[in-house]
Amino acid sequence: MRVLKDLGERRAIELILEQLEKMPQMPIPFGDDVSAYPLNGERLLILKTDMLVGKTDVPKGMSFWQAARKAVVMNVSDFAAKGVKPLVMLVSLGMTGNILEKELIEVAKGLNAGAREYGAFIVGGDTSEASDLIISLSVFGLAEKDYLMLRSGAKPRDIVAVTGLFGKTSAGLKVILENCKASKDIRGSLLEAVYMPKARLKEGLALSATKAVTSAIDSSDGLAWSLHELSKASSVGFSIRNVPVAHETVKFAEMNGLDPLDLALYGGEEYELVLTIKPNLWDKAEKAVKSVGGELIKIGTATAERQIILEVEGKRRVIEPRGWEHFKRL
Amino acid sequence: MRVLKDLGERRAIELILEQLEKMPQMPIPFGDDVSAYPLNGERLLILKTDMLVGKTDVPKGMSFWQAARKAVVMNVSDFAAKGVKPLVMLVSLGMTGNILEKELIEVAKGLNAGAREYGAFIVGGDTSEASDLIISLSVFGLAEKDYLMLRSGAKPRDIVAVTGLFGKTSAGLKVILENCKASKDIRGSLLEAVYMPKARLKEGLALSATKAVTSAIDSSDGLAWSLHELSKASSVGFSIRNVPVAHETVKFAEMNGLDPLDLALYGGEEYELVLTIKPNLWDKAEKAVKSVGGELIKIGTATAERQIILEVEGKRRVIEPRGWEHFKRL
Repeated sequence: MRVLKDLGERRAIELILEQLEKMPQMPIPFGDDVSAYPLNGERLLILKTDMLVGKTDVPKGMSFWQAARKAVVMNVSDFAAKGVKPLVMLVSLGMTGNILEKELIEVAKGLNAGAREYGAFIVGGDTSEASDLIISLSVFGLAEKDYLMLRSGAKPRDIVAVTGLFGKTSAGLKVILENCKASKDIRGSLLEAVYMPKARLKEGLALSATKAVTSAIDSSDGLAWSLHELSKASSVGFSIRNVPVAHETVKFAEMNGLDPLDLALYGGEEYELVLTIKPNLWDKAEKAVKSVGGELIKIGTATAERQIILEVEGKRRVIEPRGWEHFKRL
Repeated sequence: MRVLKDLGERRAIELILEQLEKMPQMPIPFGDDVSAYPLNGERLLILKTDMLVGKTDVPKGMSFWQAARKAVVMNVSDFAAKGVKPLVMLVSLGMTGNILEKELIEVAKGLNAGAREYGAFIVGGDTSEASDLIISLSVFGLAEKDYLMLRSGAKPRDIVAVTGLFGKTSAGLKVILENCKASKDIRGSLLEAVYMPKARLKEGLALSATKAVTSAIDSSDGLAWSLHELSKASSVGFSIRNVPVAHETVKFAEMNGLDPLDLALYGGEEYELVLTIKPNLWDKAEKAVKSVGGELIKIGTATAERQIILEVEGKRRVIEPRGWEHFKRL
């Protein structure tokens, strides 16, 4: 009999979806980062749930406060990628009976801090007894259908862009979990990326208002994986000519004999946005992101051919559909 | 240092709430069964999350299909108590890597069956790796503020009513967990109450339309506990003169030397509605519930004095604030 770890998370989700009767006229299809319910006219209720599990999502050294805040960031990041402001959140907390009172208070403070950091409020929830820390968040917002940024919609010749540099989280995780070396000048920055991730909400909202974005996703499963998801949903390929790697990651890779591009492409738990932009609206999009203090970095173009190719320094390599996946043991 | 099992779930929730910055003008205060966000006019978005955990919520002999359906029922029951139709649901699934493919499919089928049984659709979700089965559901609906049934609002002289008989679930759990005796003629019915609970959604929606209800809650933490919650939220007491005990429970109690009233009052995981009704609208309320195939049973009256007293067969006893509580070991 096959078990879940043979199937992997993605096949498991397909299997689940095959059992579900679909709501007629779903405004956002299964497989995108958020779900929706049609309110009146063009207005949509936007819904999202994601669960943080102690064992898999809370690396060594992360405090309860940071874990709770991270649970919020994971969810807000998907709202950011769709250009939707999170309004309210519910939290379903699973904990062991042995969690300390002060740890419980830390969890609550971390949830509140995360919600307020992105302008949302926690308005309800529930606690249960579980054998591990479980923070399941549900997030709600409202959107006009025309302003939603979906995974589908990229066209050949659109510009591919990201909102920041890659590779710090995967390097940081290697410091924490594999005892990789990191000199003093980069160590803090790498650990900060792991313990205090940021969602690009300001950037996502500013971009949504420009209507310049044709497809969008966050990079929480890794840049490579995100590109493959956009490719699949939009039926395009990508020619990538620039992978913006954080300088700390370049240094870390050198110190540990690793490939900085691998760290940047196949990491995960990194919450940048990966977007395609209409070429004629590039300037507008760039300006919008700058106006909220962010940056928009060109990394390539969408192509009719459905391959995802990295072309840097005269070398061509295929960007593989690899990234973080629950359950799968490779 | 105090840990959660010393505090109990209720104190834990208070501690969490103390750390949260409250959204201004919350349409439903913390502590009720659902949360709300104001849309335009009198329209509210209604939100609810509740988590089923294998270890604590899935008794021996319950199938994966039944566990998943039960996760839906737990959530729908709170919507029923507020008089709100659940429209869409999201599911956050935690599972071990060793769950069988066919068990995963059963979970998905059970979720779908539960949602469809109550007219809702599952529109999204997420899977995670966890050390136990975790089914965290989020449910969404829409309501007009005037039609919401809250925990607060009961007035002295209101009629206290319930939608069915009590005690089958607690008897069934004693059969499953404590090997209590049950003769063949009642065993099936007791186990059915545990494995296939029903939410009183039709009844809740019909009652909400009458505007006869002044306060409402479901009995998922036990009838006694529900009365105490209504008492606290509404600042009234109750004089209870009739506890409707299922005949199977009476028989089970006799066979095992137990008190049937204890089984009916202090059980839990039973999903009847407990309501207070305006006396002048009683007939309307009763008719509304009958019209959807249910029954509304008078059990007592609300009183100005804040005690909760049971008066049957000339005997007076205090109904204690006991019931199911996570974490607490008594």
